[in-house]
Amino acid sequence: MARRLRVGVIGTGAMGADHIRTLHRWVPAARVVAVQDLDVDRAKQLAADVGADVAESADDLIDAGTVDALIIASPDPTHAPLARAAIAAGLPVLCEKPLGTDPQESRSVVDAEVAADRRLVTVGFMRRFDPGYLRLKDAIAAGRVGVPRLVHNVHRNRVGHPSATTEGIVVNSMIHELDVVPWLLDSPIVQIEVTSPVAEGFRDPQLAVLRHANGALSTVEVFIEAAYGYDVRCEVVGTAGTAALVPPAVVTHATGGVAGTEVPADFRPRFADAYRLELGAWANSVLDGSPVGPTAWDGHRATVIAAAGVASLHEGRAVPVPDEPRPSLYG
Amino acid sequence: MARRLRVGVIGTGAMGADHIRTLHRWVPAARVVAVQDLDVDRAKQLAADVGADVAESADDLIDAGTVDALIIASPDPTHAPLARAAIAAGLPVLCEKPLGTDPQESRSVVDAEVAADRRLVTVGFMRRFDPGYLRLKDAIAAGRVGVPRLVHNVHRNRVGHPSATTEGIVVNSMIHELDVVPWLLDSPIVQIEVTSPVAEGFRDPQLAVLRHANGALSTVEVFIEAAYGYDVRCEVVGTAGTAALVPPAVVTHATGGVAGTEVPADFRPRFADAYRLELGAWANSVLDGSPVGPTAWDGHRATVIAAAGVASLHEGRAVPVPDEPRPSLYG
Amino acid sequence: MARRLRVGVIGTGAMGADHIRTLHRWVPAARVVAVQDLDVDRAKQLAADVGADVAESADDLIDAGTVDALIIASPDPTHAPLARAAIAAGLPVLCEKPLGTDPQESRSVVDAEVAADRRLVTVGFMRRFDPGYLRLKDAIAAGRVGVPRLVHNVHRNRVGHPSATTEGIVVNSMIHELDVVPWLLDSPIVQIEVTSPVAEGFRDPQLAVLRHANGALSTVEVFIEAAYGYDVRCEVVGTAGTAALVPPAVVTHATGGVAGTEVPADFRPRFADAYRLELGAWANSVLDGSPVGPTAWDGHRATVIAAAGVASLHEGRAVPVPDEPRPSLYG
Amino acid sequence: MARRLRVGVIGTGAMGADHIRTLHRWVPAARVVAVQDLDVDRAKQLAADVGADVAESADDLIDAGTVDALIIASPDPTHAPLARAAIAAGLPVLCEKPLGTDPQESRSVVDAEVAADRRLVTVGFMRRFDPGYLRLKDAIAAGRVGVPRLVHNVHRNRVGHPSATTEGIVVNSMIHELDVVPWLLDSPIVQIEVTSPVAEGFRDPQLAVLRHANGALSTVEVFIEAAYGYDVRCEVVGTAGTAALVPPAVVTHATGGVAGTEVPADFRPRFADAYRLELGAWANSVLDGSPVGPTAWDGHRATVIAAAGVASLHEGRAVPVPDEPRPSLYG
Repeated sequence: MARRLRVGVIGTGAMGADHIRTLHRWVPAARVVAVQDLDVDRAKQLAADVGADVAESADDLIDAGTVDALIIASPDPTHAPLARAAIAAGLPVLCEKPLGTDPQESRSVVDAEVAADRRLVTVGFMRRFDPGYLRLKDAIAAGRVGVPRLVHNVHRNRVGHPSATTEGIVVNSMIHELDVVPWLLDSPIVQIEVTSPVAEGFRDPQLAVLRHANGALSTVEVFIEAAYGYDVRCEVVGTAGTAALVPPAVVTHATGGVAGTEVPADFRPRFADAYRLELGAWANSVLDGSPVGPTAWDGHRATVIAAAGVASLHEGRAVPVPDEPRPSLYG
Repeated sequence: MARRLRVGVIGTGAMGADHIRTLHRWVPAARVVAVQDLDVDRAKQLAADVGADVAESADDLIDAGTVDALIIASPDPTHAPLARAAIAAGLPVLCEKPLGTDPQESRSVVDAEVAADRRLVTVGFMRRFDPGYLRLKDAIAAGRVGVPRLVHNVHRNRVGHPSATTEGIVVNSMIHELDVVPWLLDSPIVQIEVTSPVAEGFRDPQLAVLRHANGALSTVEVFIEAAYGYDVRCEVVGTAGTAALVPPAVVTHATGGVAGTEVPADFRPRFADAYRLELGAWANSVLDGSPVGPTAWDGHRATVIAAAGVASLHEGRAVPVPDEPRPSLYG
Repeated sequence: MARRLRVGVIGTGAMGADHIRTLHRWVPAARVVAVQDLDVDRAKQLAADVGADVAESADDLIDAGTVDALIIASPDPTHAPLARAAIAAGLPVLCEKPLGTDPQESRSVVDAEVAADRRLVTVGFMRRFDPGYLRLKDAIAAGRVGVPRLVHNVHRNRVGHPSATTEGIVVNSMIHELDVVPWLLDSPIVQIEVTSPVAEGFRDPQLAVLRHANGALSTVEVFIEAAYGYDVRCEVVGTAGTAALVPPAVVTHATGGVAGTEVPADFRPRFADAYRLELGAWANSVLDGSPVGPTAWDGHRATVIAAAGVASLHEGRAVPVPDEPRPSLYG
Repeated sequence: MARRLRVGVIGTGAMGADHIRTLHRWVPAARVVAVQDLDVDRAKQLAADVGADVAESADDLIDAGTVDALIIASPDPTHAPLARAAIAAGLPVLCEKPLGTDPQESRSVVDAEVAADRRLVTVGFMRRFDPGYLRLKDAIAAGRVGVPRLVHNVHRNRVGHPSATTEGIVVNSMIHELDVVPWLLDSPIVQIEVTSPVAEGFRDPQLAVLRHANGALSTVEVFIEAAYGYDVRCEVVGTAGTAALVPPAVVTHATGGVAGTEVPADFRPRFADAYRLELGAWANSVLDGSPVGPTAWDGHRATVIAAAGVASLHEGRAVPVPDEPRPSLYG
């Protein structure tokens, strides 16, 4: 029987708990053998559910030698230090986005990988595993839209986290589009302009215009307090036609004078498939020794673009995205 | 670490091969340890892919004592005999539909279970695990459509199998609706009338009108040679509104004067999720010792209704569905 | 300047008033010069709105010689007698459906036309002028669905008129489908079976299965108390594909967890275009002297089929539609 | 009988011919009594179709005293001079957009009206009469989207006119959005930035970001060579939800593996209703003496914004829209 990847999970909040459950239920290639969280009770409960051990600290979990690979789902400021620790320990790691809270942090992970001369980090931009985005990418590659000229993105949440900030809209939410659109178009972002119809306080929604190296333009609306539900849209417009995501409803209702579908309350039902596919692909890729998905470099570049976006929002102008030579490790 | 169900799979044709791959990729609760098929090369190839053994015969596989549970995906006429053999061996079994090619066969499986006084058989009516159908059932249960009065079903294939027959449309295809609609409404079918716009030869499409015990009526169109693609629809119409399945597209295209979505070529993409959920739920239910999904009784009743449907088609009249007392084993 | 048709309108209830307003606002080829209603105040008000005279009685209006053509929108039992009076007076007439409350009545209008050897009557089956139905008919004629095999129809009202009866569902509502589907398929209905999930009292909804001369089958759901709104659907299913009406929404909303469109409360917004096109085509056809739209024969045959439908509902069996030779007047 | 407006139409190209036919067929309040075009044969043909006279020149038509009102559908550079001539003659006029080819021209029309102290000009921004846009405006006014924050617009043509220019995309096409969005939001545009993914030659598509006085932002994609068809979209995004136009299909097809609707080849089917409603409302408003629809001021301001848009495109930066005091004539 095939070997199963022994996975340790650091962070058992909403995201970490979801990953643990998804691995347990849907990913035969892996099993969760250790979990860790500052909230020990929460960690214990989840560990019991899946038959895992509880580690005392993240370092203990990394150093114990009992896991083959790591998932980092702890708070954002811990991502880069833990990713570096994983690299130091030679452990493949799936790190939730963002890879760092600023470009210096994310760059430190890239540098660690380059120093180790080995790609160990996958960044949790799960949209690259979403069947819809994959079909969009296939459609572009197959020439079905002709030459892509524009990409229109919408990214709406029902309500924001109480801790949401103006800058966090770019760094934590828009960062998904900052990663996935260049991947779709196979063309990096060279300029970003972010603005908002709200001039002061919590500046939500935000509107970004991205310019890609191939000339294509993307619009990105991020609206954290969109009230009606969670809604992610993407339309690629080219010289031969368009391709766009379809909302993920499975049932439509006609009642009380309205015919329509329910909008999910948050990202989990919308991207359940993407997370399942991400974790399955990652576990198998680690077993195979062939990295898959967004690299530390991708995670770093998204953070660089997000920082430029924040600067743009603060300064009220378009900001060029600083260029950096891509280390040869990333092909 | 949790015990994993050792599964043997009999039949490695399209359906069996899909089940093997789905279990291997998506169901940690199970692992395929043995497969068997008359086409030994095909069986060997699949066994190699998932690290399973090849059994010489179905009987060998059942009797070897190396599997905890069985999946029957061999040709239709083998379903009932193999299901009885599994019951005799005390093995939980997921048996592809139809449970029998006629009511006598399907009844023999029920009788065997009743004699064993133990529910071991789950019939592969995967639609009961489809998120869309589940949402429909939830909507009905929550009163969102009021009192259900009508259910409209459409079941279209792109092309028929060369061996497709007029009667097979009822027994092999319409049987899905004959199972799932009574389950949705929680009301058995008491009368069926099947007719066709095609008077002779291969009588496709077919139109059935079902009367349920609670008075509700269902229409079922089955169209094997619908040409444009695989399309399954279901709308429940009640006194307060309607609920209906949404086609499963993830991307929409606008090109060449047409805006729309691709229709799948066959049932696999449409019900991939349903099969994954079916196999996961079944494996866990066997491990837990608590049966899940359609029972042998359900499978038998669907076969009884299908036989009444064939009689209706032949005789050109509505046919009452013969009643039978439900054995206490089935609650 | 082109001559304008002088139109008299008998009946100024909801339907008549709508016709008067539509002619006044949208049909340059006609002008309403006289109106009549038992409710004299209502008639006077409408007359004043459009600059028409009020006639004392229907006979007065017909006999006064001041109108070139007539619209009959008075209560159903008056349709046939007034249509005959119009024929006697040599007046072209647009008669609201049904042409008669029973086949004898509607036949009397046909006989009167045949005796007069002149087609004067157009029956108000406005769906034949609806852009959607016209596109369906064009699609069939162009071979886009291949050979039509099935037509699925849905016809739902939000609430029924207090005077609605079980039989009226067939005679007043379903009659639209009994006219439009044979027209779509260019194949008459030879058999009708009507049933209901409701066994007693007001038997709503109703489900009809129609068999056409060319073998095709149609299903028709009519649901007067469908609660959620007015909804008319039609899907033609053929050997090469399907064509179906699209609901007529112009705006979609996403709010409160639901994304969807409003369903009209009654038939007026849904068929406003059809009525406008019907009245325009009719007025021009009278001016041109070339009849357009559903004939008295069409109106009569729909009534014959409806009567067979009522018989089917009462008797619980399929009823053949009595055949009649088509008078040569109707080509 | 009510008086009918005697209309003269200058310009019988595609737009003028459509207006003439629409008036003739659908607008009882008006009749076309005179037409004029440099292409005399074309003018004669249309005149014959509707029973109108042919004027030798635009001036003749204006000065003859035989028309009550004027429609200007001649080439763009003639709009302002003819509109001024109509004002001088005291004739109400429906002038096709743009009111002027530059702000000086459009301002000259405003100045002429102000000097005459009488509003005579309606500008042919027909979208303000489109049922979809009207429903959007109603939805906003009713608070259904909360506070509007963003409006996303798409405006695609299948193929461009051979004479299409980079600047013309703004001045002739985007101008529709430059008028309709401020009207929707009841908030003028204060800044415009136009850019394109195409750096040189015919710069198509174009992307505009508009800032409104109330802070709201609008995106506008205009794509003249969008290849797949004519497609106009508008989504208003607010703090309580969204409202968006629905594409105008009446029939959907499933054939050859695709389920979808046809996209119109040009703007005529899409806005046929809007033109009909525009012409009907205009004719009645002239008869009533109460102006309706976009004013000369609206037409001028759209031209001012378009000029700022062209400057933005040329200069690669956001351009503030010059402010002007609104003459009291325009409320």
